[in-house]
Amino acid sequence: MKYLVTGFSGFVARHFTQFLEENVENVHVLGLDIGAPHYNETRPWVQFEQINLLEKDRLEAVIRSFAPDYILHLASMSSVSKSWEEPEKSFTNNTNIFLNLVEALRHNHIPARLLSVGSSEEYGIVTETELPLRENMHPNPISPYAVARVSQELLSKVYAHGYGLQIVLTRSFNHIGRWQNTRFVIPSFVKQLVDLKKYPERAQVLYTGDTSIVRDFVDVRDVVHAYHLLLQKGQSGQVYNICSGKGHSLREIIALLSELMELEIKIRTNPKFLRPADNPRIIGSYRKIAQEVGWKPRYSLRESLQDIIQFWEMEAIAQTTT
Amino acid sequence: MKYLVTGFSGFVARHFTQFLEENVENVHVLGLDIGAPHYNETRPWVQFEQINLLEKDRLEAVIRSFAPDYILHLASMSSVSKSWEEPEKSFTNNTNIFLNLVEALRHNHIPARLLSVGSSEEYGIVTETELPLRENMHPNPISPYAVARVSQELLSKVYAHGYGLQIVLTRSFNHIGRWQNTRFVIPSFVKQLVDLKKYPERAQVLYTGDTSIVRDFVDVRDVVHAYHLLLQKGQSGQVYNICSGKGHSLREIIALLSELMELEIKIRTNPKFLRPADNPRIIGSYRKIAQEVGWKPRYSLRESLQDIIQFWEMEAIAQTTT
Repeated sequence: MKYLVTGFSGFVARHFTQFLEENVENVHVLGLDIGAPHYNETRPWVQFEQINLLEKDRLEAVIRSFAPDYILHLASMSSVSKSWEEPEKSFTNNTNIFLNLVEALRHNHIPARLLSVGSSEEYGIVTETELPLRENMHPNPISPYAVARVSQELLSKVYAHGYGLQIVLTRSFNHIGRWQNTRFVIPSFVKQLVDLKKYPERAQVLYTGDTSIVRDFVDVRDVVHAYHLLLQKGQSGQVYNICSGKGHSLREIIALLSELMELEIKIRTNPKFLRPADNPRIIGSYRKIAQEVGWKPRYSLRESLQDIIQFWEMEAIAQTTT
Repeated sequence: MKYLVTGFSGFVARHFTQFLEENVENVHVLGLDIGAPHYNETRPWVQFEQINLLEKDRLEAVIRSFAPDYILHLASMSSVSKSWEEPEKSFTNNTNIFLNLVEALRHNHIPARLLSVGSSEEYGIVTETELPLRENMHPNPISPYAVARVSQELLSKVYAHGYGLQIVLTRSFNHIGRWQNTRFVIPSFVKQLVDLKKYPERAQVLYTGDTSIVRDFVDVRDVVHAYHLLLQKGQSGQVYNICSGKGHSLREIIALLSELMELEIKIRTNPKFLRPADNPRIIGSYRKIAQEVGWKPRYSLRESLQDIIQFWEMEAIAQTTT
């Protein structure tokens, strides 16, 4: 089976490839990304091609020649804060790369199944009574990034129902795991804490944004498992939440991290991490994907954090020794 | 007061200018369109500039130099059937011209009030129990054109709430009136009927699509009145239905036209006019715009049709004598 993976240099694609290695036989992966991966990919069944997905003709040629069975479309300009700085670019780039993909499939009659990855950001501002968020709740996006994601969903449904393409959709909640960039909150915390542990003489202070906000964190290893199941068995034109179904405040997570790392730290708020008009609580429901494809999260928050801590501790040692 | 009107060569803009002439003093209009109007515009307070709104820099220069107080954004690639042929073009052109407009306002801090004209197509497939359609019903667009329109709505809300632009939104239902192109159903009927009346020796047959479908037809003179009121008093970030609140089948309309024109005709279905997956009935509610800005339709269907008949009869005479 041939898998095309866009956004290949991100941490989710790296976990997806690992999932395939451990669970699927006879598989070929072609990864596409605007920048090469930061790690050394040596598996012979994985190829990489550096490409800007806005280059429509080149993308079409790649798809025609590779003729994928499955497409995992992870590529996006996914920063909400950058989308506020460049709303037009965030919107048009995200929707155009998606259109380039589906038009290539449509024009060349390639019967690949496509997973269009969306975000819990699509829900926008929600009220307590709407929790846990279900897929039949209509999105009310408030950032340019979230609008692009909702537009991609609407386009997906037109291409699925109107043109018969096989497109399955997700709204993925905050995923966490090793290899995630430290511009995200959990790796940022863990990296800071690993540094504090390494230098106990320093003031044991963690800088954070608002720690009262509650989010639904799901282990990236569970996420890529869900992506694989949806590519096989998800219903075309349907959208599926991928989440843990549980909410944890950042304060709770910091407490759990401190316990796991045996640290006593103080929390200090850094105003530059505060976001305007943020939801106090976001929790999703995974009932639909559980019922339709039999997925549920396997890793507890504690297990996820342990793995992330282990990773950053190894990184710190590697840095020291190089 | 300075009004910028995009899509100036269409029939709605022509009615809007006429509305301004009859109702508003000290007004300047700058009309923009990719093609020049087919009629001779001689009013000294109306200027026209031929421009492709995808030319971002040129559009920005025009907006900066004209510095409008109000913008009526009528321009769109509005054909649903063409959007099925070229989904990508329909989506990107419609959203890009809108983004070019709002980005020009944002970058240049121009405090103009913008009316973003949407369509009842945004509602998509609806059920009988959802009629009459209200604005709080979430859109479920099924054509590429409708997806572009919903995306424009979502972007409007981001620019209104996130960047403080003044943007009022509409979902306008089927509007009818003189000067409308005969690719729309009512002028197509009337023109055929005027021809039949002129040549009574011909078989008195009208070719139609499915005449059982019910639509909410609103007089374009009422529509431009609503647009003017919303530009003055509509709430930014809010969407307003513009409709008659009444549903009429095409069969009823043909009967009324026959009565008004004193014709006895037969109806024959032409399969090329039949559309797949069409809504049997579309009726809107205008309660919100009535409550918030005091608009309600003034013209009855009979009055609208009389005006359209009169127009096409004059056209037929003009053709004969030239």
